[in-house]
Amino acid sequence: MAIWSKDFTLLKNNIVETKPLVHHITNYVTSGDCANVALCFGASPVMADELEEIDAMTGAAKALVLNIGTINQTKLTSMLRAAEVARSRQIPIIFDPVGVMASSFRQKAAQQILRDGVSIIRGNYAECRCLLGDASFGQGVDSQALSDGQGKFAAKAAQQFGCVVAVTGALDAISDGQTTILATNGVELLTKVTGTGCMTTTLIACAAAVSMEYLPAAVFGITAMNVAAEKAAVQLRAGEGPGTFKAKLFDQIYNLSGDDIAVAFRGVGQNA
Amino acid sequence: MAIWSKDFTLLKNNIVETKPLVHHITNYVTSGDCANVALCFGASPVMADELEEIDAMTGAAKALVLNIGTINQTKLTSMLRAAEVARSRQIPIIFDPVGVMASSFRQKAAQQILRDGVSIIRGNYAECRCLLGDASFGQGVDSQALSDGQGKFAAKAAQQFGCVVAVTGALDAISDGQTTILATNGVELLTKVTGTGCMTTTLIACAAAVSMEYLPAAVFGITAMNVAAEKAAVQLRAGEGPGTFKAKLFDQIYNLSGDDIAVAFRGVGQNA
Amino acid sequence: MAIWSKDFTLLKNNIVETKPLVHHITNYVTSGDCANVALCFGASPVMADELEEIDAMTGAAKALVLNIGTINQTKLTSMLRAAEVARSRQIPIIFDPVGVMASSFRQKAAQQILRDGVSIIRGNYAECRCLLGDASFGQGVDSQALSDGQGKFAAKAAQQFGCVVAVTGALDAISDGQTTILATNGVELLTKVTGTGCMTTTLIACAAAVSMEYLPAAVFGITAMNVAAEKAAVQLRAGEGPGTFKAKLFDQIYNLSGDDIAVAFRGVGQNA
Repeated sequence: MAIWSKDFTLLKNNIVETKPLVHHITNYVTSGDCANVALCFGASPVMADELEEIDAMTGAAKALVLNIGTINQTKLTSMLRAAEVARSRQIPIIFDPVGVMASSFRQKAAQQILRDGVSIIRGNYAECRCLLGDASFGQGVDSQALSDGQGKFAAKAAQQFGCVVAVTGALDAISDGQTTILATNGVELLTKVTGTGCMTTTLIACAAAVSMEYLPAAVFGITAMNVAAEKAAVQLRAGEGPGTFKAKLFDQIYNLSGDDIAVAFRGVGQNA
Repeated sequence: MAIWSKDFTLLKNNIVETKPLVHHITNYVTSGDCANVALCFGASPVMADELEEIDAMTGAAKALVLNIGTINQTKLTSMLRAAEVARSRQIPIIFDPVGVMASSFRQKAAQQILRDGVSIIRGNYAECRCLLGDASFGQGVDSQALSDGQGKFAAKAAQQFGCVVAVTGALDAISDGQTTILATNGVELLTKVTGTGCMTTTLIACAAAVSMEYLPAAVFGITAMNVAAEKAAVQLRAGEGPGTFKAKLFDQIYNLSGDDIAVAFRGVGQNA
Repeated sequence: MAIWSKDFTLLKNNIVETKPLVHHITNYVTSGDCANVALCFGASPVMADELEEIDAMTGAAKALVLNIGTINQTKLTSMLRAAEVARSRQIPIIFDPVGVMASSFRQKAAQQILRDGVSIIRGNYAECRCLLGDASFGQGVDSQALSDGQGKFAAKAAQQFGCVVAVTGALDAISDGQTTILATNGVELLTKVTGTGCMTTTLIACAAAVSMEYLPAAVFGITAMNVAAEKAAVQLRAGEGPGTFKAKLFDQIYNLSGDDIAVAFRGVGQNA
């Protein structure tokens, strides 16, 4: 998809040149990994969730990540305030509904966060289906059907929430409700390292921090993670696995150019 | 110990095939490492501690890890509720009394968790002695005496708490109060990486999630960590140390088969 | 600077021989990395922040780290109590004002921590300037001017706070208000791994735990991190980056002798 090449190079250059501050309210399990992936990509991460400093932190940021892994009532209150600040200042909000299907507490939290709108949602298929409250998609389908179904599903979710929705997995479907991108980069080993979803959300936020075109920004962030994973995986020697892969994943994200990402991108577009 | 070989292979296969959900209420220092070790082993970790979602999280899990590193009053309340849920649904509870000797707050927390019973306790010698409130074991003894004493100590603790007790260190003693296993796998470098004890507890929980025989499950989880550590350590080159070792430790846990664990296992059984 | 050689060797040996307990009240993003760096260096880290156990934890420690990354009101209350305990028992307090310029909440927290005195402050230039409330240093200057200015700045801050102040960056300036050390060890890659500042603070605390001479202790901790980083960086092969570098950083800290640190140290002293 040659059309993205110029965009990807521009996005990457803008991140490296402006080092955008990306404010995360996120879980304690993968927060260090998210900070590292943002640094490797050229951005400036900050993690902070005390309510009294939310106005200052979010107000100074170029993007806001809300990630509900290990969420509690205190963090939710800070997230809702941060989202208000971000909306009032046109700072993009990137929402990661980690494990939202696991409890009604997370479902209510997600509803509150989504009520007044976010810029981009990134989740896996189960998470995004739960957000939509719609179990009619993708059950019992084979992978080809899932491919078609996942694109339609992402488009429907994007229309319903009025934002870009990225449904990631073996296949990634990213839609703004009008145009949908289906992409197939990535490797199975990504599922054996905790936080690769959270880190993908962070990379999307780094891109959204420097561009108001959220559809290419989301495709770019997802593709960066997946291409880095492909490059890391091919370097593994016999007997190596998720531990060495994770170290090499950061190496590759650090070394990726926008052009590398564009060249390796395997995706197609479709209209809703 | 040929008798374990079949069990270990079965346990590993069951974990990989059923991908059991293991709910952790644990510390923020090593939670990412515990999630990664569970993924490498084939299980599905989830970390969550908001009281409002405990019933859903623990209720959906196949095992519950309670780890009191960085514990506070809020987490303790969630742990006690999670333990109630686990007991009512016959979900195994694996308790890690991290640093329990360091404060009376932790000792009271441990007493509350233990009051209504857990399935397996895994701690080092100092932690387990503190739980037992018994300073008569193992002081001023040489390592051979410690070897005998540690087995008897584990058996006594198992009898007192009515569960499997695993006392880990240079020597591991695991007992259900009747049969005690003494095992010697492992390497010194494990003491130079934070969270290897927590990770061992997670591996035990992965096994207990797929088997109600908690004594072999505990021996299996401990041996998996120690054998992986041995395999990682022999690969280190001159000048490498805990950083490279840790990455390779995850690689090895990912690549271990049940048979690998059984073959490398160095342990003997004794009756109480 | 041959004069430090003996000190550095003595400091390292004392850490390894006495394995001092270093109590951290710190952020959840880099706490695992700080624990690992302390273990690699030979010390015993503990992270704990529940108010009810602060007296026991700090009271048993040989040094106290207060790090305000991801601070909240609850942690601040624990920090203030821990600082009281440390002062009453002559336990050194090492303060890391992470991101203090980012919010008035952090500035107030820092003022409360500093009010009754700490032993050592370690921060970057922006953080230390914010503590001092003085914007007159270092703006618009070239790097040579910064070099001179940073030494004077560190000395001024040390005089104002009545403690050792370490201002770290491309150049490190460490002062007790009388003598100031300017040092230039380190590599750019340190800025691409989250928590290298926090980890440096931990290494300083390991040294302060075994010596009441806080100026050489601070220089030693900073130089240990920077020399380890230099040794790690030169081992990187084409295509490697922050992920592999981080693993090797822990390896090198583990393998560093006091003499290694002294030999590689590039620093000069100046009087205030």
